[in-house]
Amino acid sequence: MTLALAEADYAATLGEVPVGCVLVKDGAVLARGHNLRESNQDPTAHAEMFAIRAAAAALGTFRLEGVTAYVTLEPCAMCAGALVLARVPRVVWGCRDPKGGAVATMFGIGTDRRLNHVFESHEGVLAEASAGRLRAFFEALRARGKK
Amino acid sequence: MTLALAEADYAATLGEVPVGCVLVKDGAVLARGHNLRESNQDPTAHAEMFAIRAAAAALGTFRLEGVTAYVTLEPCAMCAGALVLARVPRVVWGCRDPKGGAVATMFGIGTDRRLNHVFESHEGVLAEASAGRLRAFFEALRARGKK
Repeated sequence: MTLALAEADYAATLGEVPVGCVLVKDGAVLARGHNLRESNQDPTAHAEMFAIRAAAAALGTFRLEGVTAYVTLEPCAMCAGALVLARVPRVVWGCRDPKGGAVATMFGIGTDRRLNHVFESHEGVLAEASAGRLRAFFEALRARGKK
Repeated sequence: MTLALAEADYAATLGEVPVGCVLVKDGAVLARGHNLRESNQDPTAHAEMFAIRAAAAALGTFRLEGVTAYVTLEPCAMCAGALVLARVPRVVWGCRDPKGGAVATMFGIGTDRRLNHVFESHEGVLAEASAGRLRAFFEALRARGKK
Protein backbone atom coordinates (compact mmCIF):
# COMPACT_ATOMS: atom_id res chain seq x y z
CA MET A 1 0.00 0.00 0.00
CA THR A 2 2.99 2.28 0.50
CA LEU A 3 3.74 1.88 -3.21
CA ALA A 4 0.11 2.63 -4.07
CA LEU A 5 0.38 5.83 -1.99
CA ALA A 6 3.52 6.75 -3.95
CA GLU A 7 1.48 6.36 -7.16
CA ALA A 8 -1.18 8.64 -5.63
CA ASP A 9 1.51 11.21 -4.77
CA TYR A 10 2.78 11.11 -8.33
CA ALA A 11 -0.77 11.70 -9.64
CA ALA A 12 -1.04 14.78 -7.40
CA THR A 13 2.14 16.26 -8.92
CA LEU A 14 0.32 16.09 -12.28
CA GLY A 15 -2.71 17.90 -10.89
CA GLU A 16 -4.68 14.67 -10.72
CA VAL A 17 -6.84 13.51 -7.81
CA PRO A 18 -4.33 11.42 -5.82
CA VAL A 19 -5.34 7.78 -6.18
CA GLY A 20 -2.91 4.95 -6.79
CA CYS A 21 -3.07 1.21 -7.35
CA VAL A 22 -0.52 -1.60 -7.27
CA LEU A 23 -1.14 -5.23 -8.24
CA VAL A 24 1.01 -7.88 -6.58
CA LYS A 25 1.46 -11.56 -7.40
CA ASP A 26 3.71 -14.04 -5.60
CA GLY A 27 5.19 -11.22 -3.55
CA ALA A 28 6.29 -9.18 -6.59
CA VAL A 29 4.79 -6.01 -8.07
CA LEU A 30 3.05 -6.98 -11.31
CA ALA A 31 1.63 -3.60 -12.34
CA ARG A 32 0.88 -0.15 -11.00
CA GLY A 33 -1.24 2.80 -12.01
CA HIS A 34 -2.40 6.24 -11.00
CA ASN A 35 -5.31 8.44 -11.87
CA LEU A 36 -4.84 10.33 -15.17
CA ARG A 37 -8.34 11.54 -15.95
CA GLU A 38 -7.47 15.20 -16.42
CA SER A 39 -4.17 14.65 -18.24
CA ASN A 40 -5.72 12.20 -20.69
CA GLN A 41 -9.25 13.68 -20.69
CA ASP A 42 -10.39 10.08 -20.44
CA PRO A 43 -13.23 9.22 -18.05
CA THR A 44 -11.92 5.66 -17.72
CA ALA A 45 -8.36 6.69 -16.76
CA HIS A 46 -8.49 5.51 -13.14
CA ALA A 47 -5.51 3.99 -11.34
CA GLU A 48 -7.01 0.51 -11.18
CA MET A 49 -7.80 0.35 -14.91
CA PHE A 50 -4.18 1.01 -15.92
CA ALA A 51 -2.90 -1.55 -13.43
CA ILE A 52 -5.43 -4.21 -14.47
CA ARG A 53 -4.68 -3.83 -18.18
CA ALA A 54 -0.92 -3.85 -17.59
CA ALA A 55 -1.18 -6.95 -15.41
CA ALA A 56 -3.29 -8.80 -18.00
CA ALA A 57 -0.74 -7.90 -20.68
CA ALA A 58 2.13 -9.07 -18.44
CA LEU A 59 0.44 -12.40 -17.64
CA GLY A 60 -1.02 -12.92 -21.13
CA THR A 61 -4.49 -13.63 -19.76
CA PHE A 62 -7.51 -11.65 -18.64
CA ARG A 63 -7.78 -13.83 -15.54
CA LEU A 64 -5.65 -12.26 -12.81
CA GLU A 65 -5.58 -15.31 -10.57
CA GLY A 66 -3.51 -15.09 -7.40
CA VAL A 67 -3.28 -11.30 -7.67
CA THR A 68 -3.82 -8.89 -4.80
CA ALA A 69 -4.86 -5.34 -5.64
CA TYR A 70 -3.83 -2.48 -3.34
CA VAL A 71 -5.82 0.69 -3.93
CA THR A 72 -5.61 3.88 -1.87
CA LEU A 73 -9.33 4.74 -2.28
CA GLU A 74 -12.44 2.57 -2.31
CA PRO A 75 -12.95 1.56 -5.97
CA CYS A 76 -15.80 3.14 -7.94
CA ALA A 77 -18.36 1.04 -9.85
CA MET A 78 -16.22 0.95 -13.00
CA CYS A 79 -13.06 -0.17 -11.19
CA ALA A 80 -14.80 -2.59 -8.83
CA GLY A 81 -16.54 -4.07 -11.88
CA ALA A 82 -13.21 -4.39 -13.70
CA LEU A 83 -11.65 -6.16 -10.68
CA VAL A 84 -14.58 -8.62 -10.77
CA LEU A 85 -14.21 -9.18 -14.54
CA ALA A 86 -10.47 -9.77 -14.03
CA ARG A 87 -11.24 -12.37 -11.32
CA VAL A 88 -8.93 -10.60 -8.86
CA PRO A 89 -9.26 -12.64 -5.65
CA ARG A 90 -8.24 -10.02 -3.08
CA VAL A 91 -8.62 -6.23 -2.92
CA VAL A 92 -6.99 -4.21 -0.13
CA TRP A 93 -8.06 -0.58 -0.04
CA GLY A 94 -7.59 2.55 2.01
CA CYS A 95 -10.33 5.05 2.76
CA ARG A 96 -13.98 5.00 1.83
CA ASP A 97 -15.34 7.18 -0.97
CA PRO A 98 -18.65 8.62 0.24
CA LYS A 99 -19.50 9.96 -3.24
CA GLY A 100 -18.67 7.00 -5.44
CA GLY A 101 -17.42 4.02 -3.45
CA ALA A 102 -18.95 0.89 -4.94
CA VAL A 103 -17.45 -1.95 -2.89
CA ALA A 104 -18.92 -1.06 0.50
CA THR A 105 -20.34 2.47 0.55
CA MET A 106 -22.98 2.47 -2.22
CA PHE A 107 -23.01 -0.98 -3.78
CA GLY A 108 -21.50 -4.38 -3.07
CA ILE A 109 -19.56 -4.82 -6.29
CA GLY A 110 -17.00 -7.50 -5.58
CA THR A 111 -18.78 -8.70 -2.46
CA ASP A 112 -22.37 -9.29 -3.65
CA ARG A 113 -22.69 -13.05 -4.07
CA ARG A 114 -25.07 -12.75 -7.03
CA LEU A 115 -22.00 -11.84 -9.12
CA ASN A 116 -20.11 -14.69 -10.84
CA HIS A 117 -16.96 -13.66 -8.97
CA VAL A 118 -16.44 -12.08 -5.57
CA PHE A 119 -13.20 -10.94 -3.99
CA GLU A 120 -11.96 -10.68 -0.42
CA SER A 121 -12.33 -7.02 0.50
CA HIS A 122 -10.00 -5.57 3.14
CA GLU A 123 -10.71 -1.95 3.86
CA GLY A 124 -9.02 0.68 5.99
CA VAL A 125 -5.36 -0.10 5.25
CA LEU A 126 -3.35 3.15 5.56
CA ALA A 127 -6.74 4.84 5.24
CA GLU A 128 -5.73 8.01 7.05
CA ALA A 129 -2.65 8.47 4.87
CA SER A 130 -4.84 8.13 1.78
CA ALA A 131 -7.63 10.37 3.06
CA GLY A 132 -5.08 13.00 4.15
CA ARG A 133 -3.67 13.18 0.63
CA LEU A 134 -7.16 13.61 -0.86
CA ARG A 135 -8.05 16.32 1.69
CA ALA A 136 -4.82 18.23 1.04
CA PHE A 137 -5.35 17.99 -2.74
CA PHE A 138 -8.89 19.36 -2.65
CA GLU A 139 -7.98 22.06 -0.09
CA ALA A 140 -5.18 23.27 -2.38
CA LEU A 141 -7.57 23.20 -5.33
CA ARG A 142 -10.12 25.31 -3.46
CA ALA A 143 -7.41 27.71 -2.28
CA ARG A 144 -6.23 28.21 -5.87
CA GLY A 145 -9.83 28.69 -6.99
CA LYS A 146 -10.23 31.56 -4.50
CA LYS A 147 -7.19 33.48 -5.72
CA MET B 1 -29.11 0.23 -32.36
CA THR B 2 -28.89 -1.45 -35.75
CA LEU B 3 -25.28 -0.24 -35.95
CA ALA B 4 -24.61 -1.53 -32.44
CA LEU B 5 -25.96 -4.93 -33.54
CA ALA B 6 -23.59 -4.83 -36.52
CA GLU B 7 -20.72 -4.29 -34.06
CA ALA B 8 -21.98 -7.31 -32.07
CA ASP B 9 -22.06 -9.39 -35.26
CA TYR B 10 -18.49 -8.40 -36.05
CA ALA B 11 -17.41 -9.44 -32.52
CA ALA B 12 -19.01 -12.86 -33.11
CA THR B 13 -16.95 -13.37 -36.28
CA LEU B 14 -13.86 -12.97 -34.06
CA GLY B 15 -15.11 -15.58 -31.61
CA GLU B 16 -16.08 -12.88 -29.11
CA VAL B 17 -19.34 -12.73 -27.16
CA PRO B 18 -21.50 -10.58 -29.48
CA VAL B 19 -21.98 -7.21 -27.78
CA GLY B 20 -21.74 -3.88 -29.57
CA CYS B 21 -21.97 -0.22 -28.67
CA VAL B 22 -22.38 2.99 -30.66
CA LEU B 23 -22.21 6.54 -29.28
CA VAL B 24 -24.17 9.21 -31.10
CA LYS B 25 -24.05 12.99 -30.76
CA ASP B 26 -26.13 15.50 -32.73
CA GLY B 27 -27.44 12.72 -34.95
CA ALA B 28 -23.98 11.53 -36.01
CA VAL B 29 -22.02 8.45 -34.95
CA LEU B 30 -19.21 9.60 -32.67
CA ALA B 31 -17.65 6.25 -31.77
CA ARG B 32 -18.33 2.54 -31.82
CA GLY B 33 -16.92 -0.54 -30.17
CA HIS B 34 -17.33 -4.27 -29.77
CA ASN B 35 -16.29 -6.82 -27.25
CA LEU B 36 -12.65 -7.95 -27.62
CA ARG B 37 -11.94 -9.67 -24.33
CA GLU B 38 -10.66 -12.94 -25.78
CA SER B 39 -8.72 -11.41 -28.68
CA ASN B 40 -6.96 -8.92 -26.41
CA GLN B 41 -6.96 -11.06 -23.24
CA ASP B 42 -8.02 -7.86 -21.52
CA PRO B 43 -10.78 -8.06 -18.88
CA THR B 44 -11.71 -4.41 -19.55
CA ALA B 45 -12.13 -4.87 -23.34
CA HIS B 46 -15.91 -4.41 -23.44
CA ALA B 47 -17.71 -2.66 -26.30
CA GLU B 48 -18.70 0.37 -24.22
CA MET B 49 -15.17 1.02 -22.97
CA PHE B 50 -13.72 1.29 -26.47
CA ALA B 51 -16.56 3.55 -27.58
CA ILE B 52 -16.30 5.81 -24.50
CA ARG B 53 -12.53 6.27 -24.84
CA ALA B 54 -12.78 6.93 -28.57
CA ALA B 55 -15.57 9.47 -28.04
CA ALA B 56 -13.61 11.30 -25.33
CA ALA B 57 -10.59 11.43 -27.64
CA ALA B 58 -12.74 12.73 -30.50
CA LEU B 59 -14.35 15.44 -28.34
CA GLY B 60 -11.17 16.29 -26.39
CA THR B 61 -12.94 16.03 -23.06
CA PHE B 62 -13.91 13.30 -20.61
CA ARG B 63 -17.40 14.79 -20.34
CA LEU B 64 -19.55 13.21 -23.04
CA GLU B 65 -22.34 15.76 -22.83
CA GLY B 66 -25.20 15.39 -25.29
CA VAL B 67 -24.16 11.84 -26.16
CA THR B 68 -26.55 8.89 -26.43
CA ALA B 69 -25.10 5.42 -25.96
CA TYR B 70 -26.68 2.45 -27.76
CA VAL B 71 -25.63 -0.90 -26.32
CA THR B 72 -26.98 -4.29 -27.35
CA LEU B 73 -26.73 -5.80 -23.84
CA GLU B 74 -27.41 -4.31 -20.40
CA PRO B 75 -24.09 -2.79 -19.26
CA CYS B 76 -22.10 -4.53 -16.53
CA ALA B 77 -20.89 -2.68 -13.42
CA MET B 78 -17.65 -1.59 -15.11
CA CYS B 79 -19.35 -0.20 -18.20
CA ALA B 80 -22.29 1.36 -16.37
CA GLY B 81 -19.78 2.98 -14.02
CA ALA B 82 -17.77 4.29 -16.98
CA LEU B 83 -20.94 5.75 -18.55
CA VAL B 84 -21.60 7.55 -15.25
CA LEU B 85 -18.01 8.84 -15.04
CA ALA B 86 -18.30 10.07 -18.64
CA ARG B 87 -21.52 11.92 -17.75
CA VAL B 88 -23.37 10.25 -20.64
CA PRO B 89 -26.94 11.57 -20.34
CA ARG B 90 -28.82 8.78 -22.12
CA VAL B 91 -28.26 5.04 -22.46
CA VAL B 92 -30.43 2.90 -24.75
CA TRP B 93 -29.88 -0.81 -24.38
CA GLY B 94 -31.23 -4.11 -25.66
CA CYS B 95 -31.68 -7.20 -23.54
CA ARG B 96 -31.09 -7.73 -19.84
CA ASP B 97 -28.04 -9.59 -18.57
CA PRO B 98 -29.23 -11.86 -15.75
CA LYS B 99 -25.63 -12.70 -14.72
CA GLY B 100 -24.02 -9.27 -14.73
CA GLY B 101 -26.45 -6.52 -15.65
CA ALA B 102 -25.76 -3.53 -13.42
CA VAL B 103 -28.20 -0.86 -14.63
CA ALA B 104 -31.45 -2.64 -13.78
CA THR B 105 -30.92 -6.34 -13.02
CA MET B 106 -28.45 -6.37 -10.10
CA PHE B 107 -27.62 -2.77 -9.27
CA GLY B 108 -28.84 0.69 -10.23
CA ILE B 109 -25.62 2.08 -11.64
CA GLY B 110 -26.63 5.05 -13.73
CA THR B 111 -30.07 5.28 -12.16
CA ASP B 112 -29.33 5.35 -8.40
CA ARG B 113 -29.72 8.97 -7.35
CA ARG B 114 -26.97 8.74 -4.72
CA LEU B 115 -24.49 8.86 -7.62
CA ASN B 116 -23.22 12.27 -8.74
CA HIS B 117 -24.57 11.60 -12.24
CA VAL B 118 -27.52 9.57 -13.44
CA PHE B 119 -28.56 8.84 -17.00
CA GLU B 120 -31.87 8.20 -18.71
CA SER B 121 -32.08 4.44 -19.12
CA HIS B 122 -34.16 3.02 -21.98
CA GLU B 123 -34.18 -0.74 -22.03
CA GLY B 124 -35.59 -3.32 -24.42
CA VAL B 125 -34.71 -1.70 -27.76
CA LEU B 126 -34.20 -4.48 -30.34
CA ALA B 127 -33.82 -6.73 -27.31
CA GLU B 128 -34.88 -9.92 -29.09
CA ALA B 129 -32.38 -9.33 -31.91
CA SER B 130 -29.62 -8.88 -29.33
CA ALA B 131 -30.66 -11.84 -27.16
CA GLY B 132 -30.97 -14.04 -30.25
CA ARG B 133 -27.38 -13.30 -31.23
CA LEU B 134 -26.14 -14.14 -27.73
CA ARG B 135 -28.15 -17.39 -27.65
CA ALA B 136 -26.86 -18.46 -31.08
CA PHE B 137 -23.28 -17.66 -30.06
CA PHE B 138 -23.39 -19.71 -26.86
CA GLU B 139 -25.25 -22.58 -28.54
CA ALA B 140 -22.55 -22.77 -31.23
CA LEU B 141 -19.88 -22.64 -28.53
CA ARG B 142 -21.49 -25.52 -26.65
CA ALA B 143 -21.92 -27.53 -29.87
CA ARG B 144 -18.22 -27.09 -30.66
CA GLY B 145 -17.34 -28.10 -27.10
CA LYS B 146 -19.25 -31.38 -27.54
CA LYS B 147 -17.42 -32.42 -30.72
